[in-house]
Amino acid sequence: MLPTPKKFFVTAGSAEGKNHLNAFDNALLKGRIGNLNLMRVTSILPPGVQYCPDLEIPPGSLVPTAYGYIISDVPGELIAAAVGVGFSKDSFGVIMEFSGKCGKEEAEKAIENMLKEAFETRGMELVGTKIASAEHRVEKIGCALAAVPLWY
Amino acid sequence: MLPTPKKFFVTAGSAEGKNHLNAFDNALLKGRIGNLNLMRVTSILPPGVQYCPDLEIPPGSLVPTAYGYIISDVPGELIAAAVGVGFSKDSFGVIMEFSGKCGKEEAEKAIENMLKEAFETRGMELVGTKIASAEHRVEKIGCALAAVPLWY
Amino acid sequence: MLPTPKKFFVTAGSAEGKNHLNAFDNALLKGRIGNLNLMRVTSILPPGVQYCPDLEIPPGSLVPTAYGYIISDVPGELIAAAVGVGFSKDSFGVIMEFSGKCGKEEAEKAIENMLKEAFETRGMELVGTKIASAEHRVEKIGCALAAVPLWY
Repeated sequence: MLPTPKKFFVTAGSAEGKNHLNAFDNALLKGRIGNLNLMRVTSILPPGVQYCPDLEIPPGSLVPTAYGYIISDVPGELIAAAVGVGFSKDSFGVIMEFSGKCGKEEAEKAIENMLKEAFETRGMELVGTKIASAEHRVEKIGCALAAVPLWY
Repeated sequence: MLPTPKKFFVTAGSAEGKNHLNAFDNALLKGRIGNLNLMRVTSILPPGVQYCPDLEIPPGSLVPTAYGYIISDVPGELIAAAVGVGFSKDSFGVIMEFSGKCGKEEAEKAIENMLKEAFETRGMELVGTKIASAEHRVEKIGCALAAVPLWY
Repeated sequence: MLPTPKKFFVTAGSAEGKNHLNAFDNALLKGRIGNLNLMRVTSILPPGVQYCPDLEIPPGSLVPTAYGYIISDVPGELIAAAVGVGFSKDSFGVIMEFSGKCGKEEAEKAIENMLKEAFETRGMELVGTKIASAEHRVEKIGCALAAVPLWY
């Protein structure tokens, strides 16, 4: 089997780029995850993982990551992305991602509501959250993203 | 290298949610795969894998999975998703996914045609299929999904 | 942790199909990667990887892959996809993907510009590139794709 991750952190970033993919790449760099091979996952924090905000991951590593992002080429538009980790008392957690044409406060509020619903549906108690968000006012082409990298 | 999966099952589910991602999450839970970290793959059943319909996978595991889904916020709309595994006699199989604004019978029929084309293109004989599907009549925000998790 | 890839190649292909997913599947087959389980990654060439254009990967393997594609059902439309790997002198490289309604020359030019920006943003010197592209004139439903599979 693939090894289950043991560590995580949360991050967010936003940036301009000369095209959509470079804007995405630049936002990843702002979030300190631009030199990794992110492998997108849906979206569970394995039981017992450790929060490691200063984790250094070697370039090119394969990193299971839950993330959300938005790219816009509408000058003046406000965009935001947020991720949230919801913790249970003694079991796994749930990760939610949001992105939209709004500010970071609205994005964070959306994440909180999404985590509440995710825990209610599972019949689990939500004992804490950790949220990261970024907002961006588009100049030409901009990206906002937020991510929860999982690591070992 | 990453270890090649040895087991699989097929599943499907549908649900409402207060927003798009929670609808997706709730449909995953209905399909018994909501507490996993699905890593999306294109779409081959490795040779020699075993069908294990009652597989229990620990929460938070990284699970290579082929899946299709549709989310709709149009009340009254009928949506469906289907997956199908096509088996060869003694080699690998092919997985196809479908989702659309239709019922599950139409989704399953689409999958059968897709598998036929996939085997024809490869010059392989299709000796059997295993299909899972779900349909959903949208109330506010609904999701239908179908998946083939691969495991060890 | 997941093992970091040690080898790579670049490929591209295009094809028709009776529906969108079969067109994608057929284009993967044209690119010699249709019998693999591609796991999409963002988009770094790990340091020290080896270029292996004739790599044979067993069917059903889980293959971390950066790829771009476009599917069109507009008869007569010209579509193209390209990938490019940008190399640094002695560190990791960067992979960029592009797809659009254009020919392969335009797609390749876009990739070159994207790689330049990716290296400028990182303050790294771009010492070489390797590019693959495919174009396709749509008959009924067509797909063009380009990919950088990473392997061991």
